[in-house]
Amino acid sequence: MNERMNRMPARAEIITVGTELLLGEIIDTNAAHLSRGLAGAGIDVYHRTTVGDNWIRLATAIGQALGRSDIVLITGGLGPTEDDMTRSVVAAVTGRNLHEDSGALQQIEKHFQTTGRFMSPNNRRQAIFPAGAEALFNGAGTAPGIWLEHDNRFIICLPGPPPELRLMFDRQILPRLRQRFGSKESLFTRVLRFTEIGEAALAEALADLIEAQSDPTLALYAGRGEVRLRLASRAKDANEAEACCAPIDAAVQRRVGSHLYGRDHETLEAVVGEMLKTTETTLAIAESCTGGLLGHRVTNVPGSSAYFRGGVLAYADDVKATTLGVPKADLQKHGAVSAVIAEAMAHGVRERLGASYGISITGIAGPDGGTEEKPVGTVFIAWAGPEGCLAKRFQFYTNRESFKGRTTTAALDGLRRRLLGLQPWSGTEA
Amino acid sequence: MNERMNRMPARAEIITVGTELLLGEIIDTNAAHLSRGLAGAGIDVYHRTTVGDNWIRLATAIGQALGRSDIVLITGGLGPTEDDMTRSVVAAVTGRNLHEDSGALQQIEKHFQTTGRFMSPNNRRQAIFPAGAEALFNGAGTAPGIWLEHDNRFIICLPGPPPELRLMFDRQILPRLRQRFGSKESLFTRVLRFTEIGEAALAEALADLIEAQSDPTLALYAGRGEVRLRLASRAKDANEAEACCAPIDAAVQRRVGSHLYGRDHETLEAVVGEMLKTTETTLAIAESCTGGLLGHRVTNVPGSSAYFRGGVLAYADDVKATTLGVPKADLQKHGAVSAVIAEAMAHGVRERLGASYGISITGIAGPDGGTEEKPVGTVFIAWAGPEGCLAKRFQFYTNRESFKGRTTTAALDGLRRRLLGLQPWSGTEA
Repeated sequence: MNERMNRMPARAEIITVGTELLLGEIIDTNAAHLSRGLAGAGIDVYHRTTVGDNWIRLATAIGQALGRSDIVLITGGLGPTEDDMTRSVVAAVTGRNLHEDSGALQQIEKHFQTTGRFMSPNNRRQAIFPAGAEALFNGAGTAPGIWLEHDNRFIICLPGPPPELRLMFDRQILPRLRQRFGSKESLFTRVLRFTEIGEAALAEALADLIEAQSDPTLALYAGRGEVRLRLASRAKDANEAEACCAPIDAAVQRRVGSHLYGRDHETLEAVVGEMLKTTETTLAIAESCTGGLLGHRVTNVPGSSAYFRGGVLAYADDVKATTLGVPKADLQKHGAVSAVIAEAMAHGVRERLGASYGISITGIAGPDGGTEEKPVGTVFIAWAGPEGCLAKRFQFYTNRESFKGRTTTAALDGLRRRLLGLQPWSGTEA
Repeated sequence: MNERMNRMPARAEIITVGTELLLGEIIDTNAAHLSRGLAGAGIDVYHRTTVGDNWIRLATAIGQALGRSDIVLITGGLGPTEDDMTRSVVAAVTGRNLHEDSGALQQIEKHFQTTGRFMSPNNRRQAIFPAGAEALFNGAGTAPGIWLEHDNRFIICLPGPPPELRLMFDRQILPRLRQRFGSKESLFTRVLRFTEIGEAALAEALADLIEAQSDPTLALYAGRGEVRLRLASRAKDANEAEACCAPIDAAVQRRVGSHLYGRDHETLEAVVGEMLKTTETTLAIAESCTGGLLGHRVTNVPGSSAYFRGGVLAYADDVKATTLGVPKADLQKHGAVSAVIAEAMAHGVRERLGASYGISITGIAGPDGGTEEKPVGTVFIAWAGPEGCLAKRFQFYTNRESFKGRTTTAALDGLRRRLLGLQPWSGTEA
């Protein structure tokens, strides 16, 4: 359960500044970080706006935000170059003078002393602040942040580089906002995560629950290759929230439990890993077309060495024969992309690496290599274990990157179901 | 060179819809993809706005966008549930009726037939369109996109899931926008991509060039684990732009050429792959702590089967012995994380998989497993080839995810340098 505190529902909005964002040269990960923190503090975020390094558009965006929100968080534009105009625009919009802030200047000078780097005259600009603003310490870079109270609004400026922004927001800004806008009542959320079921099918299975529920409220949304259901409840404490959410969680589990693989920030690979750890079993994998992504996902889980033995990337066909013992005659007869070869690969890697379970993947990621019978996107996955081996055929109509993602999700979910004593959900008998 | 066409500078803006974005539950990668495409077509993007699944705020955002932009791209809110209100809000803001679009419905029905999944009655909602709108084919999911011309403006709605959005935008929307808003004068950009050098060091090496240049303009910025330099020039055609950029490109190459690995959208793995293809050599890899990420990156390049033989994920120590022939005595004497073992792994995988080059990685990804002598973040990489084997020791102070990324980048860059006859840049002799 994530706790989110709330009272006079304070409203915040986020303005991210930078032409590189609007050119698509970088992905904005800062906004999501700020959003998570604000949501956790029970502060509503209704708008997020991105503008380039342009005076008029930045001034307009800040003005609009001040007209509708209590807290305006601005990221970026605090650097030492002329392009960096956040400090000046904030002063202009709020009708304040600019002056050199001695605390900010000392902070910048100290940063350069500590890191032993040369301080360029340009860096002095970073201490030019709107009158009445407070400098926030930057623990990871040169630009001090800004905290300004203006006309019952809070304007908070943060540096753009993610490590600097995160440190400043988590340690200095969020605690102050919590103190200011925190309360006795909190918003608690729980996210249920589903695999191998579409959003529409899930909406139908849960239609009456979703429509009838007001506490907790239920909201379905599609994530990266999966669907999620958010339960949100306002309560005095975690126990009260738990009492409110538990019956709904249980009802959802009764209806679509085999698709519900995890909660909140659990990943499919972490859930499967936990099952392997609990049952003291191990895993080995043989990947062809996914080229290592399954191993990458499995080993993204800290502590995976407790159950992951390793694997073989059997990309070339003769490597399937030499490293996994797949019979060459079968490769010729059935082709590498077939149920027979998938089973031989899963068996081979399980035995050779001495694991409880073996997963194999062999398919056609594209864009070339498809045939009429086995078009691009065809893939066979096999799961071998103490109780035998099963292969299934899948067909994904998508690009190379997403094909690899969906294939490895199906492979992990198949193992999850096997460990729960269920059959794989999707795919066709092969 | 990327050409950006420009004339009556068309102005686009992007509205991303979804409460999950404002809660920070997902990171918006769609906006950057759309921005890159629009910039490449010479279409200016001055604003990007994110709102939740809320009728009034979405309607207000669309209205504001129509007041200042020629093209309004809306992502998300095309799903089958009641929360998905983009279709209805677009109809409301433009004063149009909603009706069931037979083409859209057929498309949805066909999608379910092809994938063999059950079509829920809710999915019919996805065919309810504003009058006069055109349905765009979704090649990777259920929700058709929307193309609507209204009062000399273009309203374009795209599904939220990234694979669906990308396919639809790249194949259908961008070509139409290019045709409509193309022109005689163009902005040409070239991005130079660097590895194993920091932004500050690069800024210092190129300081005089960056300050003196006005055509092309030069801008340095940090990307994901690398630094990039953007050259931008307005010109009549590609030849004129080339003549303008070539001397700068050459000057940069003279100064920091060994770090400059690629241009524009080239990835390090694609550059290395092209070198292997050209020299008709092959690659095999042995990964321990990176768990498959190196193989994943190598096989993200279409056509990598021409030079990638495969590999071994030697996660457990005894797997290093059995699958790669690493002597058990060496494992005991030196420990798995050592130069001796890295060399044995690179040799082993090169020989057993019959490749020209073998890369091996063995290290401590953390968060546990470090010692005083070999703290978390220690990693040995070895490169074996016809002319011998070299191992180097690296130390990355970062989290598990970023450790895997930086390690595989160092491994790929080491091979790139080997193929160019250079020594690896970073890391210490091991």
